[in-house]
Amino acid sequence: MEEKEISQAVISRLPRYFRYLGDLKDEGIERISSQELSDIMQVTASQIRQDFNNFGGFGQQGYGYNVGYLYEEIGKILGLDKEHNLIIVGAGHLGQALVNYMNFERRGFIFRGVFDSNPAIHGMKIRELAVQPMENMEAFVKENDIDIAVLTIPKSSATAVAEQLVSYGIKAIWNFAHVDLNVPKEIQVENVHLSDSLMKLSYNLASHDTN
Amino acid sequence: MEEKEISQAVISRLPRYFRYLGDLKDEGIERISSQELSDIMQVTASQIRQDFNNFGGFGQQGYGYNVGYLYEEIGKILGLDKEHNLIIVGAGHLGQALVNYMNFERRGFIFRGVFDSNPAIHGMKIRELAVQPMENMEAFVKENDIDIAVLTIPKSSATAVAEQLVSYGIKAIWNFAHVDLNVPKEIQVENVHLSDSLMKLSYNLASHDTN
Repeated sequence: MEEKEISQAVISRLPRYFRYLGDLKDEGIERISSQELSDIMQVTASQIRQDFNNFGGFGQQGYGYNVGYLYEEIGKILGLDKEHNLIIVGAGHLGQALVNYMNFERRGFIFRGVFDSNPAIHGMKIRELAVQPMENMEAFVKENDIDIAVLTIPKSSATAVAEQLVSYGIKAIWNFAHVDLNVPKEIQVENVHLSDSLMKLSYNLASHDTN
Repeated sequence: MEEKEISQAVISRLPRYFRYLGDLKDEGIERISSQELSDIMQVTASQIRQDFNNFGGFGQQGYGYNVGYLYEEIGKILGLDKEHNLIIVGAGHLGQALVNYMNFERRGFIFRGVFDSNPAIHGMKIRELAVQPMENMEAFVKENDIDIAVLTIPKSSATAVAEQLVSYGIKAIWNFAHVDLNVPKEIQVENVHLSDSLMKLSYNLASHDTN
């Protein structure tokens, strides 16, 4: 597939296509028209065609898309045909929840190590992974070909830890700390700011309140 | 403040403004120009002014915004001047992590009850909350003036549980289940699809890979 710069808005929609196509596949559906997909996903058929045209259109014909092929192609575009090695920094409740969530592994995101600055929990097992001290991180990242670091640590330490990780060769950060990281442009960062999401819900609740 | 329909893109940026203004306030900074705010937040000053103009502009004058006032006003717009009563449905690792995250309470989001379909964990305490059976949910929602439900349950049960919650009078759902809920338009839904976020990171990693 030829590379061109795709907008982040399109990228943001790809996982949702992938999810719906996976469901269709599980239901044994082999072909689907953009109109049918549009009805299920509640986006316009023209949006779907436009989005897919960014990737060559996926061979839409009169009778629609091949579900299995489309699912696989979008998976490849999302990089899901390769395994990723992850570490989690911060073994609190959220870090533990992520390590325990098996669906990530099914998609090829493998948690290799867990790190925490609190000596009281060093050696504690989360699934089969023993929590390690931060001092082990550099060697571990280099020896285990870690490409993604997940930050589930407080805001106060996130910026410094992110800088360390970058210096160890990490290429991508999945950031749950409630702060915007300041890392070089070539490092990919995806933020999950849970408080921001909850506040947005609160806004919509307040602004639609009917009393 | 007069109500008008504000775009979701603007709404999505409000919590970030709120976060930066909170930090500035904590640092003792009382005034800031849109240009200074623009430098810190890495958005254009014109974007900031446009966003704020949706809410009357917040009295920007030659010498800039009053940080404390702006923080408070954006907080009000986000509905943070009121308390919200929440329940969590699904007491797995993620549900437990959310209940244990104190920052939500500091913002007025109070977890009142935790529910799970697994009898083995009924009565288990998460902070001071005992996990309750699903059968208690209807009465609990009505008696405790619950307005927000947090769904941390598997995809397979999320749709049905969301419908139940709506019938009990819930007005907003913070959905972590990996499915798009099908609820009436007047119910506010905010999705946190963690897998989608990780896939987006994976895409950006794959498409910027330099080998």
